[in-house]
Amino acid sequence: MNINKKLSKILPSVTAEAHCDVPCGIYDPTPAKIAAKTVQRMVMQIKELKPGNHDHDISADLEYTNAIARRITTKEKHAQECKNELAILWSDYFKPEHLEKYPDLHSIFWNALKLCSKNKQNIDEDASKELVIAVDNIAKIFYETKGDNERFESYKNVTDKLF
Amino acid sequence: MNINKKLSKILPSVTAEAHCDVPCGIYDPTPAKIAAKTVQRMVMQIKELKPGNHDHDISADLEYTNAIARRITTKEKHAQECKNELAILWSDYFKPEHLEKYPDLHSIFWNALKLCSKNKQNIDEDASKELVIAVDNIAKIFYETKGDNERFESYKNVTDKLF
Amino acid sequence: MNINKKLSKILPSVTAEAHCDVPCGIYDPTPAKIAAKTVQRMVMQIKELKPGNHDHDISADLEYTNAIARRITTKEKHAQECKNELAILWSDYFKPEHLEKYPDLHSIFWNALKLCSKNKQNIDEDASKELVIAVDNIAKIFYETKGDNERFESYKNVTDKLF
Amino acid sequence: MNINKKLSKILPSVTAEAHCDVPCGIYDPTPAKIAAKTVQRMVMQIKELKPGNHDHDISADLEYTNAIARRITTKEKHAQECKNELAILWSDYFKPEHLEKYPDLHSIFWNALKLCSKNKQNIDEDASKELVIAVDNIAKIFYETKGDNERFESYKNVTDKLF
Amino acid sequence: MNINKKLSKILPSVTAEAHCDVPCGIYDPTPAKIAAKTVQRMVMQIKELKPGNHDHDISADLEYTNAIARRITTKEKHAQECKNELAILWSDYFKPEHLEKYPDLHSIFWNALKLCSKNKQNIDEDASKELVIAVDNIAKIFYETKGDNERFESYKNVTDKLF
Amino acid sequence: MNINKKLSKILPSVTAEAHCDVPCGIYDPTPAKIAAKTVQRMVMQIKELKPGNHDHDISADLEYTNAIARRITTKEKHAQECKNELAILWSDYFKPEHLEKYPDLHSIFWNALKLCSKNKQNIDEDASKELVIAVDNIAKIFYETKGDNERFESYKNVTDKLF
Repeated sequence: MNINKKLSKILPSVTAEAHCDVPCGIYDPTPAKIAAKTVQRMVMQIKELKPGNHDHDISADLEYTNAIARRITTKEKHAQECKNELAILWSDYFKPEHLEKYPDLHSIFWNALKLCSKNKQNIDEDASKELVIAVDNIAKIFYETKGDNERFESYKNVTDKLF
Repeated sequence: MNINKKLSKILPSVTAEAHCDVPCGIYDPTPAKIAAKTVQRMVMQIKELKPGNHDHDISADLEYTNAIARRITTKEKHAQECKNELAILWSDYFKPEHLEKYPDLHSIFWNALKLCSKNKQNIDEDASKELVIAVDNIAKIFYETKGDNERFESYKNVTDKLF
Repeated sequence: MNINKKLSKILPSVTAEAHCDVPCGIYDPTPAKIAAKTVQRMVMQIKELKPGNHDHDISADLEYTNAIARRITTKEKHAQECKNELAILWSDYFKPEHLEKYPDLHSIFWNALKLCSKNKQNIDEDASKELVIAVDNIAKIFYETKGDNERFESYKNVTDKLF
Repeated sequence: MNINKKLSKILPSVTAEAHCDVPCGIYDPTPAKIAAKTVQRMVMQIKELKPGNHDHDISADLEYTNAIARRITTKEKHAQECKNELAILWSDYFKPEHLEKYPDLHSIFWNALKLCSKNKQNIDEDASKELVIAVDNIAKIFYETKGDNERFESYKNVTDKLF
Repeated sequence: MNINKKLSKILPSVTAEAHCDVPCGIYDPTPAKIAAKTVQRMVMQIKELKPGNHDHDISADLEYTNAIARRITTKEKHAQECKNELAILWSDYFKPEHLEKYPDLHSIFWNALKLCSKNKQNIDEDASKELVIAVDNIAKIFYETKGDNERFESYKNVTDKLF
Repeated sequence: MNINKKLSKILPSVTAEAHCDVPCGIYDPTPAKIAAKTVQRMVMQIKELKPGNHDHDISADLEYTNAIARRITTKEKHAQECKNELAILWSDYFKPEHLEKYPDLHSIFWNALKLCSKNKQNIDEDASKELVIAVDNIAKIFYETKGDNERFESYKNVTDKLF
């Protein structure tokens, strides 16, 4: 053990640098928006898919079931992804100094997360539109804290045209 | 069974509409770019973290090990995410008509996927830059097929400033 | 289509019952506590593992590296699990009426989630103890809203003795 | 290489301590019980959801489909989680000395795992009750091996009141 | 810092050996084939499950829905697994020298991946058979590049009899 | 509600067919063997990677750390995959009639699962060989219950040559 001690005198110790308490510093609301738009798209497609008017046919029934089931699953998955992405922004990106400037920050995120759940539980075009708007509002705040409003416009340009 | 048959005369059958062979039609290279930039950031952070020059200290060693190990895992995860996102664009978004216009499409994607693996296997700033460029090249082609070059500029504006 | 209309007169429509906007109504802080205790245990084990005092031996080095790397990964995973479990309680279980009674609810959760991140980024016994206490505080509020303080005692009895 | 050899004389080698062959020593049947109760709850909710008696309405049909599909998926997921948690207890926690004291240990777990599968394959209230009982039986054995029967009572108190 | 420098003169540096740019060198088409056969089996089972001819019974309806929903999910999951396994073979195993010998390699994989998607989007026995054949064709090429045609026969013997 | 009742007289009910209590009937030990061989390969590669004998170089250190960390993670992942695959065979494929013929079935699987854990916790060539043998023994029993010993030979031919 005294060998260890002696070695510790000459061996370099290491220090993690200060900025490393941020794992990467890469945050962006675009993935949350893509997820919200996918939820909206799924609701639209589920509503559009409809019974045909030819004779009853079990194969067509199964195709319809397959089509609806896959869209319900995709809606669920992306509503969850939206929830995850927003929760990361809330807990990891936003700091006490942001809260001072945006005192409603907590309830804005709380309501947005509850909207994600609402979109899981229902097939509701209005709720999916509200979710898209909620993500855009959060994105606006996010880019304001970055002092980069032009990037918000770019974000809108990329994510509003997804389908 | 003849009851089934009778019912099939009056019950509506269903038809999945044509556009539904595309599950959602939502494709965008932004998540691949965010993943590539995260790989690049991890390589930079791994290189920046360095041994301090004070006395040997097992706690500082462990903090360094924790910091490096987490960044290697994050690099791995996002290189894989980049790989997945690019593979989806290649197999699901791009169609034979795009291949006619971009005859090198297959090798462009093949090389980009191999770059993802290279970034997993190494801690190499040049390889991480090459990956970012490879994703941008694919994004350029993607937005060209959408006939929306302005959106490419927006994509660049959003994703070049991530850190 | 008028066949559809006629059928809609005789076919039963369906209504989801009111309580179904809660997917299951099953919420409990025990999994968050198990995750927090696992983080604490990992920090303790990482600190306990130490260099031996016999001759340099590459096999022993690799065993040490394997042991540390696995505990860092397990710490990361359970800190994330704790984060997920708490985020679900915050966004899904707690309702506006709870917020009225516990006006600090949002910041209690925000700080607990930030503690999860701190435990990912460091190997810090104090931070791991703080996380366990933070989860217990949330559990106390949770069981109070259920009007079941005795269950809080049971929760403590189950989760305080995990190792 | 002879430099390496010389260094190996003065550099400390490391030894993983004995208790580390247990990754963490944290085992508890509570998560298996929560999973089993969730399966039971899903079966109950699926049975309760029923066709309304107003006019045929495609929107209500879709809401019903969404509600049922999500509960089937949740049932599946938690039956699998129950399976995983039980398999971990069986293979990792229980040791040959326990097997001596509980010679039926293997078949107790085998039957419990088969019950998880049965609950995936069916929507059966009796099977879901049997699963809850099977987990409780395993929990009883578990706390007996810990010599802590009071903790079994606490476990019951926490997990019997989940909904 | 000059202590570091001095130490760097006597401390061994490390070099990863050449073959390590291949993470493991373990590639095999068997998992892709198992996945493809599972897709085929699911399509067969979905088609076989059918309405009974006794009186209308909500419990039997729910069992049917559960059975179909689980098979659609399993089909989806294994079509995705097949996609993943094939994408790994394409991007990681195959090298430029293979491409020279098999100039259609890229389109063979592209079409196989598109077949995976087709099997997700439909319940189509022919499409599932085509997927099995596509995987076998890729397996044939794979074992040829290994110079081991006998192993292809063994692969066929193992994977053709899965159900 | 009496409309429902009337409809239930004319609407077909459904019955899941008997063989559907087996979700797919597709079981095979090949994926468990591939996982076991990957564990073995990782142990070999970890042992082979070694410090070079040129001057101390932080970049080479990091490459070594990256190479080792990735192999430890891969070893962990595939030991877990092996565990999962074996647990599925044990709980889902094997039936009471097999247990009669192979009365040691439970302990064979128990020991094999414990070997998976041992391979996670150590970097031990002997333990990895034992795991490969344990999987082969299970495979032998599996193909015997299928009455297809020739397929066991094919399985051996495919899986013994993976690297």
